[in-house]
This record gives sequence, structure tokens and C-alpha cells, in this order.
Amino acid sequence: MVFTMERRETFSSAHRLHSPAMSDEENKQIYGKCNNPNGHGHNYVWRVILKGEVDPRTGMLYDLAALKKQMAEVLDIVDHKHLDKDVEYFQTVPSTSENLVRFLYDSIKSRLGRPELLKECVLHETEKNVFTYSE
Amino acid sequence: MVFTMERRETFSSAHRLHSPAMSDEENKQIYGKCNNPNGHGHNYVWRVILKGEVDPRTGMLYDLAALKKQMAEVLDIVDHKHLDKDVEYFQTVPSTSENLVRFLYDSIKSRLGRPELLKECVLHETEKNVFTYSE
Amino acid sequence: MVFTMERRETFSSAHRLHSPAMSDEENKQIYGKCNNPNGHGHNYVWRVILKGEVDPRTGMLYDLAALKKQMAEVLDIVDHKHLDKDVEYFQTVPSTSENLVRFLYDSIKSRLGRPELLKECVLHETEKNVFTYSE
Amino acid sequence: MVFTMERRETFSSAHRLHSPAMSDEENKQIYGKCNNPNGHGHNYVWRVILKGEVDPRTGMLYDLAALKKQMAEVLDIVDHKHLDKDVEYFQTVPSTSENLVRFLYDSIKSRLGRPELLKECVLHETEKNVFTYSE
Amino acid sequence: MVFTMERRETFSSAHRLHSPAMSDEENKQIYGKCNNPNGHGHNYVWRVILKGEVDPRTGMLYDLAALKKQMAEVLDIVDHKHLDKDVEYFQTVPSTSENLVRFLYDSIKSRLGRPELLKECVLHETEKNVFTYSE
Amino acid sequence: MVFTMERRETFSSAHRLHSPAMSDEENKQIYGKCNNPNGHGHNYVWRVILKGEVDPRTGMLYDLAALKKQMAEVLDIVDHKHLDKDVEYFQTVPSTSENLVRFLYDSIKSRLGRPELLKECVLHETEKNVFTYSE
Repeated sequence: MVFTMERRETFSSAHRLHSPAMSDEENKQIYGKCNNPNGHGHNYVWRVILKGEVDPRTGMLYDLAALKKQMAEVLDIVDHKHLDKDVEYFQTVPSTSENLVRFLYDSIKSRLGRPELLKECVLHETEKNVFTYSE
Repeated sequence: MVFTMERRETFSSAHRLHSPAMSDEENKQIYGKCNNPNGHGHNYVWRVILKGEVDPRTGMLYDLAALKKQMAEVLDIVDHKHLDKDVEYFQTVPSTSENLVRFLYDSIKSRLGRPELLKECVLHETEKNVFTYSE
Repeated sequence: MVFTMERRETFSSAHRLHSPAMSDEENKQIYGKCNNPNGHGHNYVWRVILKGEVDPRTGMLYDLAALKKQMAEVLDIVDHKHLDKDVEYFQTVPSTSENLVRFLYDSIKSRLGRPELLKECVLHETEKNVFTYSE
Repeated sequence: MVFTMERRETFSSAHRLHSPAMSDEENKQIYGKCNNPNGHGHNYVWRVILKGEVDPRTGMLYDLAALKKQMAEVLDIVDHKHLDKDVEYFQTVPSTSENLVRFLYDSIKSRLGRPELLKECVLHETEKNVFTYSE
Repeated sequence: MVFTMERRETFSSAHRLHSPAMSDEENKQIYGKCNNPNGHGHNYVWRVILKGEVDPRTGMLYDLAALKKQMAEVLDIVDHKHLDKDVEYFQTVPSTSENLVRFLYDSIKSRLGRPELLKECVLHETEKNVFTYSE
Repeated sequence: MVFTMERRETFSSAHRLHSPAMSDEENKQIYGKCNNPNGHGHNYVWRVILKGEVDPRTGMLYDLAALKKQMAEVLDIVDHKHLDKDVEYFQTVPSTSENLVRFLYDSIKSRLGRPELLKECVLHETEKNVFTYSE
């Protein structure tokens, strides 16, 4: 028997794709319009997926109210922020959705009461582009 | 080669989270506003996912018309009902989404022509909370 | 020049359609499965639409943060409640979506800083049934 | 007989709410987290609504392929841009959604083959906040 | 006091845009890929909007169960059909969404118990193109 | 560490379910209304899911601009077409969603720069029916 439980939240951030490991020319070629010097932004959708057994007494896999609070702490770091300028993590790695979903995964894992339940994080960058990360 | 096929339906039910195994105080603390004595309700989204090979003659994994009919039988039990008061299964277990998605899984499995194809059931309680169950 | 501004929120309630002005037989015939004695429930979507001019200094029609707070006060009355049992208004009128959207309209109007801006309320009962009310 | 026709597109921009007509303190108080110095961003949804009669020969209100091309010209100005830094219009007015939807309305109107058909523009800033503008 | 009530249904049809009033060359130029000789198809979304007063006894604007049945009769004409080949109306007019939404409007109006309540029909051809018709 | 990346596109096609391996009577019985002689159609949603490691220099799993271009080549084969009449593949196999999602999988795989990354294709036939294929 395997149960999963998922919570969905949204946040709105600015960012610019630009890697210090590449020349300006390379950055422009690889990231295209996402390399616009003044940046752009997204309404990201973030989904956290937990996996495990259900406590027969409460009928719950994990306390949803606790998960909401823990996700809110992570949202405070990225929501209504410029990822590259306001978030320390993106000082050294480009703020691609791949790197962002990994940052969200690590950030929620360290806050969960039972981190071993974390199965996956999903990040919708737009209606058309979706990214996931798991260990 | 692995194919899956999914059918999505919705239903509207009332329920109240309250476990007979816990005191009133504990129920209130653990379930919060979901423990409101007079109950609340949801438009649930239920997705059944089958997995298997495709019959080369028909090009189909399973007869969708049959699945619709089999899901309709299960929907009759929960749609426009009060889960705790109208559904026998929830006399003994709290009507959390974890327990509900398991009930739906067991209920559709026993009705499928080829139950071995059932891979997973998904239940959306709200736009933000999603649960799955598989064996 | 006409601007409108809309805020969308959701809430989850139980209810039962049953009019004291009609016999049990009539109630059953007119409301069908919505007359189930133990009730059922919905994830309602509530949209408030304001209409007016924009303040050239702030570039805003109305303070969205204030609207959120005012809607939250109304949501406290209906969210995770049984409309017929927990909300006084529905002691005397049946909790149809028509009556509910009117209740929401009146409730938000009396809380708005500038009630004359209120244009319309919209209520999605399910994915398929939508209701609006305006004066 | 009245027909309308609507085309929906999306774009992703960064912006910051900050009005030069107000002090820093006022900006912070009125715009809240939207005043974050480094900005934030959105996946905006933009809908253009035309209204008029249908040409009986073609059965069409307006050439959809032309509308797509005309909207694409406007999208080039705002998509993957920082509204305040990259778009001239927002040098003098704050980039609120009210001002943005008016900018989009004026921008598409001047490009339409038959501008008198333009009825309204709609702008979804997030899943929860929607704005419209018409003359 | 003005109430509206809306019901949403979907149907899946094939069609081809081709007007007998125009040459093959003109058809190709005006309709583009929609003029493909073998046709294409859509999952259409059809929304019927009624407008009027609410009966204080039932709290309803119109009987939703009756509307469902009346819409089902219209859906039988277009669902899982080729509009141009299977529907008489489109023998003489091209099956553009403008003409289709008008056909749906006329077809539901003649079936409504109180046709004077019909305010508007909405037709979503795709996620991006939406059409309405009203008298 | 496992990353996935998904791109979503839509296309609009006509088709008819009819298997040359079965009698007309059998076709009608098995495919029901999908066997309508003149066909019907859908707005299909197609999602391509890649799985792999992220290049630390670019922070990307795969070049999204390349994926868009490669998907566009496949879309050219099916969009605004009649699957059975315009696509060679469906001359010999019925155009069920199971066979269609497999065709899309094979078609995108042969175009990917790194085909070993392809994990799965998903096909939404309607809002209610979803199919996947993987090797």
C-alpha cells in the first residue's frame, strides 16, 4: 500500500538566465530571450509530493497544516523577489527551473518533520514548461 | 512498451473529519476547521489510472465505455452524499482523503473486468490538495 | 474609460437544498439529488468584480490587500461550514447558488470601503454550473 | 445580433510597483511586497475581445490570423522584458495591472485593421487577480 | 436585481472551413490550415447563459436538470459528428465558430421552457479562441 | 538525483475509429459513437517528458528551444489534419489515443538530439481521457 499526498502553492518572481561560467555571447545563444539583461518573471506553481503510509488513528499521511506552514517559510524566500538578486543560492548557479526546483526540494526537505517522506517537487514555470526533481 | 489510460470524473460530497479513536479535543487539534461539527464539503476530482498492453486488433488498453459505467456505479455511492452518514465504509474510519482514495480504489477494482490493470487512483480534494493510492 | 478588477477565492461547504415553503415530495422532485437528507458539498469559487476609475497617483482601482481582508471576513462565515446549519441567512431561504451568490454580494458590499464600486459577484458551484448576481 | 471573438495569449515579464509621485514610505505602504526593490514577475494572460457583425461570405467577425500577428507585435514589447526598465510607457506611470491592461488595449487598437471592433482587453496577473479595460 | 446562471458542456466534432461562395484559392487564402481538404476537429466547450429573476419559493432562476436535458438534445446533433457532413445547417453556411455558436444559440432557444431568459451562448474552439453570440 | 522536464503543446485533428481487422458491426459495437462514418475530432494536448541529469554549466537538462522545434516538426504531421486520411501511420492501425500517443513518442524520439532522455509521452484526448506511452 502506497499513499502520496500533494500540496500546491504559487509564487511570483523575477529572474534572468545568465551563467557566470559562460561568455556574454554564449549566454545569449543558450538562454535566448531568457537572457534579457533587465530580466523577466513568472507565476511559478510549486507542488510538494510526500509518499508513505497512513496513520490508522488519524487517517493521515502527514499533517497538511504543518506542510502549509513549512512551505510558507520557503515561499517567503522566493515570492515577490528577484531570484538572482534576492536569493543567496542563485548567486552561484543560474536560476533555471531545474536549479530552482532542486532549491525548493532541498529547502522544504530541511523543514519537514519527517523528511524521509519527501518524494518529489514539481515546478511549473509556465503553462507549457514543467520540471521535477527527486533524489 | 507500457501504456496507461486514465479517466477523470467528479463528485460532490459533504463530510466531517472526526475519529472515534480520539477525544473531542484531539479531533479539534488534529483536524482543525475540518472538524466543524456540522461538516463541510468538496467537489472531488477522481482519476482512475489503468496500465497494461494494447490489444493490437482494437488498439485499446481497456474499453472506456465499460470503465465509465463501472466508475458510475462507484460514484452513485459517494456523489451528492454525506460520506460519514451515507457511506457504510466511513462508519469506522475517518473520511480523510487518504481513506477516501483507498475506498475508491478498492471499489473500482472490484468492478473492473480486468482488475490487474488498475495502477492507481488519484483524488483531488481541492485545487491545492491531491492524494493517490496504489497497492 | 472603464476598468474592472476581480479577485478570486475558494471555499468548501456542505449544504442541502430543502425549502420549508414546499412539501417533502415537492422538495425531492424539484431539487433531486441535491435534496439528499444528509446533504452534500462543494468547493465553491467566488469572484468579486469591482468597476470604476483608476487613481492616477497609485495606478489602482481599489486596494487589493484591503479587498483580500474584506473577502476573508466573508469567507470565515461560509468556509468549512454547513451553510444551512451554520449560517443564519440560510435558516429562512434555501441554499441554492442563486441565493448564495446574493448573500456573498451583500456581505462583501457592506464591508467594502467604497461599496459603489461593486459590480458583480460570480459563484462557481462546480466546473459546470456558474451563477452571478448584480444589482 | 451581436458576436464577440476572443484571442488569448500569455507573456512573462518582471516589474516593480513604485510610483515617482509618492515617497518611498508611501510606496512601501501602498504596494506592499509588490514594491520589493529588485522587482518580481508574472506569467500574464492577455485576452483581446472584439465585437461586431459577421461577414456572411466568410462567416467570420475578424481574421484570426491577422489578430494573432497584431497581438504578436504587442507581445514583442512586453514578453520576457522588465516592464519598468524595458518599456517606455512605464517610465512615467507605475506598472500596475490597471495601467498595463490599458497599455495593451491602446497598443492592440492602433494595430487592428478595424479598431472600432475592439471591445475590451482582459489581463490575468495571477490565477486570482484579473483586470479589464474598455473605453 | 439581476441573476445569471450558466451551464457548461463539451463536444467533439470534425469540420472543414470551406465556403461555397468563394473560389478554392480564396478559401485557402482566407481559412489557411482550417481549409485542409480532409478536415480537422476540436473539443468544443459550449456555455449557455440565462438571465432573469429568481423564484423566491425555489430559490432558482431555471431548472438546471431541465437545462441539462435540453442541452443534451442539441449535443446529440453535433457531438462526435462531422459538422459539415452530418449537420444540415452547415450545408449552406461555413462551419466557422461564429456560425456554430449562433446555431447552438438558436437550437437551445427553441428548446428552453422560457426562451426569453436566454442571454448568451459562449463557444470555446480551442484554449485560445472563444466566441459568443447574443441577440 | 533525477530531473524531469516537460513541454506541453496542443493540436486539433479529425479522426474516425475503424479497424480494418474487424467487421462493420464489430467496429460499431466496440467504438460506439467514435465509429461515426464521417468522423469527429479533438483538441489534443501532447506532453513530452524528458528525464536525466542537469548540465552544471547551463543548469539545463535539455535545450527547450530545440525541443520546441522538434515537437513542431511532429505537430506539422498531425495538426489541422484528418489522422486517418492524412497520416500514413494510421492507414494500417486504428487512430485510437493509445496508438496516437505511441506514434507521437516514436516521432519525437527520432528527432531528439539525445533520444535516451525521452521518458514518456502523455496525450489528453479530452478533459476526461488521458493516455501515456513509454518503453
